[in-house]
Amino acid sequence: MDTAEFRRRGKEMVDYVADYLENIEKRQVYPDVEPGYLRSLIPEEAPEQPETYEDVVKDIERVVMPGITHWHSPYFFAYFPTANSFPAILADMLSGAIGCVGFSWAASPACTELETVMLDWLGKMLNLPEEFLAGTKGKGGGVIQGTASEATLVALLAARCRMVKRILSDDPERPEADIISKLVAYSSDQAHSSVERAGLIGGVRMRKIPSDSKFSVRGEALRKVLEEDKAAGLIPFYVSQFCATLGTTPSCAFDYITEIGPICNTEGIWMHIDAAYAGSAFICPEFRPLLDGVEFADSFNFNPHKWLLVNFDCSTMWVKNRTDIIAAFKMDPLYLKHDHQESGIHTLHTHTHTHTHSICHWQIPLGRRFRSLKIWFVFRMYGLRGLQDHIRKHVALAKEFEALVRVDERFQISAEVVLGLVCFRLKGSNDLNEALLKRINSARRIHLVPCQLSGRFVLRFAVCARTTESRHVQEAWAHITQLATELLRQFPQ
Amino acid sequence: MDTAEFRRRGKEMVDYVADYLENIEKRQVYPDVEPGYLRSLIPEEAPEQPETYEDVVKDIERVVMPGITHWHSPYFFAYFPTANSFPAILADMLSGAIGCVGFSWAASPACTELETVMLDWLGKMLNLPEEFLAGTKGKGGGVIQGTASEATLVALLAARCRMVKRILSDDPERPEADIISKLVAYSSDQAHSSVERAGLIGGVRMRKIPSDSKFSVRGEALRKVLEEDKAAGLIPFYVSQFCATLGTTPSCAFDYITEIGPICNTEGIWMHIDAAYAGSAFICPEFRPLLDGVEFADSFNFNPHKWLLVNFDCSTMWVKNRTDIIAAFKMDPLYLKHDHQESGIHTLHTHTHTHTHSICHWQIPLGRRFRSLKIWFVFRMYGLRGLQDHIRKHVALAKEFEALVRVDERFQISAEVVLGLVCFRLKGSNDLNEALLKRINSARRIHLVPCQLSGRFVLRFAVCARTTESRHVQEAWAHITQLATELLRQFPQ
Repeated sequence: MDTAEFRRRGKEMVDYVADYLENIEKRQVYPDVEPGYLRSLIPEEAPEQPETYEDVVKDIERVVMPGITHWHSPYFFAYFPTANSFPAILADMLSGAIGCVGFSWAASPACTELETVMLDWLGKMLNLPEEFLAGTKGKGGGVIQGTASEATLVALLAARCRMVKRILSDDPERPEADIISKLVAYSSDQAHSSVERAGLIGGVRMRKIPSDSKFSVRGEALRKVLEEDKAAGLIPFYVSQFCATLGTTPSCAFDYITEIGPICNTEGIWMHIDAAYAGSAFICPEFRPLLDGVEFADSFNFNPHKWLLVNFDCSTMWVKNRTDIIAAFKMDPLYLKHDHQESGIHTLHTHTHTHTHSICHWQIPLGRRFRSLKIWFVFRMYGLRGLQDHIRKHVALAKEFEALVRVDERFQISAEVVLGLVCFRLKGSNDLNEALLKRINSARRIHLVPCQLSGRFVLRFAVCARTTESRHVQEAWAHITQLATELLRQFPQ
Repeated sequence: MDTAEFRRRGKEMVDYVADYLENIEKRQVYPDVEPGYLRSLIPEEAPEQPETYEDVVKDIERVVMPGITHWHSPYFFAYFPTANSFPAILADMLSGAIGCVGFSWAASPACTELETVMLDWLGKMLNLPEEFLAGTKGKGGGVIQGTASEATLVALLAARCRMVKRILSDDPERPEADIISKLVAYSSDQAHSSVERAGLIGGVRMRKIPSDSKFSVRGEALRKVLEEDKAAGLIPFYVSQFCATLGTTPSCAFDYITEIGPICNTEGIWMHIDAAYAGSAFICPEFRPLLDGVEFADSFNFNPHKWLLVNFDCSTMWVKNRTDIIAAFKMDPLYLKHDHQESGIHTLHTHTHTHTHSICHWQIPLGRRFRSLKIWFVFRMYGLRGLQDHIRKHVALAKEFEALVRVDERFQISAEVVLGLVCFRLKGSNDLNEALLKRINSARRIHLVPCQLSGRFVLRFAVCARTTESRHVQEAWAHITQLATELLRQFPQ
């Protein structure tokens, strides 16, 4: 494909994308295919000779679309939202063309620098404490990770490294592996599976703190576990980290970081805050109090690619001390060295190391795409106001759905509705609710996923698509209640 | 931005991208900016109100482009190539619009299924042993990771998990942390820094095997270290992995996997092959012998996003036993469960689990973009022949450069030229070569990075851009020799 053909095909693709998104609600939100459907639709091997673009493009509707769960359909209420906006798509086109690999400042200075400044922009929008910003002289700063799972892992590794160093400074002869084997990290029993996985990967044992009746961890609960462990002589272990969640995946519950934070600070425990979904809401002053206590944290992460209209992948992470995180990863092969890193620039103008740091020391992968472009495009084309409007609209739609549930006596709300997620269920058995969900998802008109709260099978209704409106919510509820009525008629409780 | 505006702006962006790539060689390959250049060019905060698209787009040339290292300029010879092609850009546009998060089969069946089939296509193109393919009944299969660093880490964690299980089966009471603290993994002393980093993250100690005069690890060298360690009673450790490199980063050297493989198999050591750069070349029959011995490996990885025209990120990894890798990660929260995973389908048609496996159990992140689309577009629009032509052209250009170096008596070739990388230097001191490189990169007409081989400072000339032609190579050499002449005149050796 030469440039001339790309110009033509690219414009056709722009129209295809526009048509797809414009008409997405006419498509069935969840696909009908059975596992293995795709293999028989395409050849078993790559073609020897080039095919035409027409051949390829006609297979989008024939092969791909029948197997798509349409996350951007306004009838999609499953999981959590994943962002999609036109400015982000445009920025990603540019990023694909530039196609730089931004593992160091020299590998493409704009890639590192725009990211640093965008994370400052976003940090200010969230009213993060100054310490988390890079500015021109700060010790902290932000970085884009691929996903919250990676951020969680990076935070755990940084906490592990800090604790190992601390212990080695008292006892330099002690083998590092021995120290690591004695580390322990805590999180809520509601924390995302990726927290446990981070422990598994980092070889750090995890302990879960029981959450309260609202699925939140209180300071008291953490203190109690710490004291029990100490009293029972169970602490040959070093508590290296507490991973707090703001907006848990099952029910969007919030740990009490104003209570937990001071305990962590006193005990020298790294506090990482995972606000993957909820974090976007903190740009609205009315939701910002949910982030109070962030000043006690060592690291903070959320996903603009969930709810801030920046397409996946864009998980933003801030730390108070860049050196903590760099220490956990740093390696310096010669092929990554560059003038501005090794020259006297650092000593002459120490502030510049904010810009010349190699971002590869902040993350698991070495390479990275130019992802800050889409933050830049989205923030500028929506403005803070436009982004706040988007958050507020989703929260209002969730409240609207909640109100509908509350007036139907057959149903109950299973967790406080704080942002865009409503957890609800039929009063009755888990089997009944599982049957209802099955009917909902089999009907294919809307799509939901379940969760478990205090042993109960619960349905999650998350407002997801950028284009979801009141009528979609109303329609969804009418559909759910109709299926519930049929179900209850067949299986009276 | 509404759909109508997106149609217009999208088409403008297609033209911008086409113009950028069509005229890229007129741009200075390496930027002039100093660290911190960008911050002062843009506001300190995100705008309150939306800006217009015109405002944003005019900043591309004002703010971004002055800080770009143009990886796709035909004058870029640094690092290794990163892929860029029109079909991949088109596929990524589509992927951005669909914007699904493919962490499980149900989250978008096409995303999981196309990936599985594309990895089979690519596996066949590489003539990988049948065991690495998923097919409809295989135990193996492939997955797209973000980067080779992630693949290396995943392989290390899978090897760690397998060894821990093996030891626990003999000694079930032994604490897992104790076992992990006694694990050791080997790699070449030429291996990429990410190998050492994987060990650091996974808490597994790494030992480096000395490479030979051609920078390759031979079986004998591995055997010697193993025997020394055993004889010295130094093996309370369990050797969990050997990470072999095909095409090292400094010099594109190849470990002898036909020698190393059988040793690993006999000793129960997991052999992972990292062929990040070189792997793409194995689609050409004349280079495929470099992969002989892959049949001994447990896992194999390379980056189509380097040299196979599939834009970043696309690092393909195959394993012989999916269960090895899934065991290292598996967690099953309820919100990720879906019908086809938990229903009787598995037991009724066991072959379907190839398609219903949740890819999140294969990788560090939970979420993932629909990345197989770009493989599909690229392979079909180039055909195997087109891709082979691309590889062969780059190798021929490297040979052309090598020949130019060899006829100039002032220079020497520092490592065998096998693929698209030429390592060369002026006969003389490291300081002299460092000075030459500095002049080359300061002149900004071409861009190179160095490496260190046997203590010598060496220049790396990697053929990178899709559009590099003979004239660019000739011009680069004329430029280098001119700078060398000036340098030698000023500092006669």
